[in-house]
Amino acid sequence: MAKTVVVALGGNALTREGESGTFEQMRANANAMARSVASLLRAGWRVVVVHGNGPQVGNLAIQQEEGAALVPAQPLFCLGAMTEGQLGSLIALALRRVGTSDQTRGAVAVVTHVVVNPDDPAFDNPTKFIGPFLSKDQAESMAAIRGWVVKQDGNRGYRRVVPSPEPVAILEAGAIRALTEQGQVVIAAGGGGVPVIRYPTGYGGVDAVIDKDYAAQVLATSLPAEALVLVTAVDTVLLHYGTPDQKAIHEMAVGEAEQYLETGEFPEGSMGPKVRAACRFLRAGGELAVITSPELVYASLRETVTELEGESGTKIVRVKPLIASA
Amino acid sequence: MAKTVVVALGGNALTREGESGTFEQMRANANAMARSVASLLRAGWRVVVVHGNGPQVGNLAIQQEEGAALVPAQPLFCLGAMTEGQLGSLIALALRRVGTSDQTRGAVAVVTHVVVNPDDPAFDNPTKFIGPFLSKDQAESMAAIRGWVVKQDGNRGYRRVVPSPEPVAILEAGAIRALTEQGQVVIAAGGGGVPVIRYPTGYGGVDAVIDKDYAAQVLATSLPAEALVLVTAVDTVLLHYGTPDQKAIHEMAVGEAEQYLETGEFPEGSMGPKVRAACRFLRAGGELAVITSPELVYASLRETVTELEGESGTKIVRVKPLIASA
Repeated sequence: MAKTVVVALGGNALTREGESGTFEQMRANANAMARSVASLLRAGWRVVVVHGNGPQVGNLAIQQEEGAALVPAQPLFCLGAMTEGQLGSLIALALRRVGTSDQTRGAVAVVTHVVVNPDDPAFDNPTKFIGPFLSKDQAESMAAIRGWVVKQDGNRGYRRVVPSPEPVAILEAGAIRALTEQGQVVIAAGGGGVPVIRYPTGYGGVDAVIDKDYAAQVLATSLPAEALVLVTAVDTVLLHYGTPDQKAIHEMAVGEAEQYLETGEFPEGSMGPKVRAACRFLRAGGELAVITSPELVYASLRETVTELEGESGTKIVRVKPLIASA
Repeated sequence: MAKTVVVALGGNALTREGESGTFEQMRANANAMARSVASLLRAGWRVVVVHGNGPQVGNLAIQQEEGAALVPAQPLFCLGAMTEGQLGSLIALALRRVGTSDQTRGAVAVVTHVVVNPDDPAFDNPTKFIGPFLSKDQAESMAAIRGWVVKQDGNRGYRRVVPSPEPVAILEAGAIRALTEQGQVVIAAGGGGVPVIRYPTGYGGVDAVIDKDYAAQVLATSLPAEALVLVTAVDTVLLHYGTPDQKAIHEMAVGEAEQYLETGEFPEGSMGPKVRAACRFLRAGGELAVITSPELVYASLRETVTELEGESGTKIVRVKPLIASA
């Protein structure tokens, strides 16, 4: 039976640094993303794509505010659902362009809801900056009118800050599994998914942003998938970053990775969450986690690639094979 | 095996006449919509929900224009994809609230693309008004800057007008079928689906709005579904509307309905497309088409309801049963 891989890509893979976020820019970037995924499809993997939505939901939030005098602005979780439609469509069409010429598989985007715990400490300590920079006056006004929590973000002004709770479960996991089993490439949990809380009457949205790498891990564990690939801007995780001892890691066992996390080797703002998501996936039964650049996704999942070849990303495994420690 | 019904509901079922379109309004309306669908689930039907998006995509278009000085406005088909996420999430959560207490079924929204023919005559004759009213100056400016086609809409000003081509195929039909077979309630082809054209490189979006009743028919035929329900504001189709001979139709054979269409009995702006969608569905093998209000959806699908009881909507059937013509 074919193995399943969950591939998580950043929202800045669709709107790159310096781009304004036009549709044409996003389509070109989606095509590049799709080519990197297509190599996995050709190798026989079942693929689920999780994408970020930072730049896109930021743009939507600006448009909502600019139009607020004329039509009601929608809550943040609703904007998240909108970007699942927007980017899901974009990526699905891009995957069909590259992925279905030599096979009959379709690509389908599923609007995904991710359950969070209302008692998650993140709700008392919002840390995730979203949307545009505001002046002090604007920030105070939005706090008063909309109940936003606003904080200073560096020296560029004030921004809205929202909770980033841990994902607990994926409401659509069964549907996504059924689609992968049918041979579909599935786009799911975009932007980390629409965060929902279980109320006595049922699930309802909550204004928060779930880390997409953590959401990808919960999805990968739920399916279950054999592999989790966290795509980032660099080829490999670096040890002792920025010091003379800096060194690329091509393979590490989950225990090693956890030790590095404990000693603060990977900062929370960058590699920390990715390495943690990888470790959680392996501890929950996953076979292989990879952190790498779009270019090395395929090479990192080829079974014949060994550490010695040096052309793969960072593989994190349950137990390091003997050959690697030889 | 359980039978499948495709239920098409208007976007104004989610944002009602006189409402501004706040999230709270839409959530309350979605809950009402879900209760009407839940009765079908309890009766054992597999259900696919198709929804309109007129008011919501109109609001999004206003926000996009108001924010255009700061961030790039997205093309119309992309706004359609956004409303598939927005309303798909809303309806999926509402269905879970009412529909899963007594069963294990989930509800899942699928971002759906609908293929149209680039040679469709609608592209040379855009007829569908969308978005906000504009002054003559604004209209001329948008025509010059964005290449919009604008036309006067009654005496309230100018509006953008877009093609409304015929739906040809549903890219995600196989995925939607797999999900219904798994017992999921599926929300699909929202707003008529994202219209796409097949280019040499693959499918790409095109600025158009597909009639959601026609899209629902193509989806119902593709699955295939046994029944198609087109929900509207009135309980039944009326014959000789607005004349002393006005009469509610409770059942008609497809041949009769086609004759009425030919003689112009049903205006194109209201019942015409619904009756036509119903006829196409039956001619393509469907068993039963219903046009009715949300309140009578369930009664109209109960097999024991006959014309004589007078409490169902308008049923259109392939061949009128003997009892009805007795």
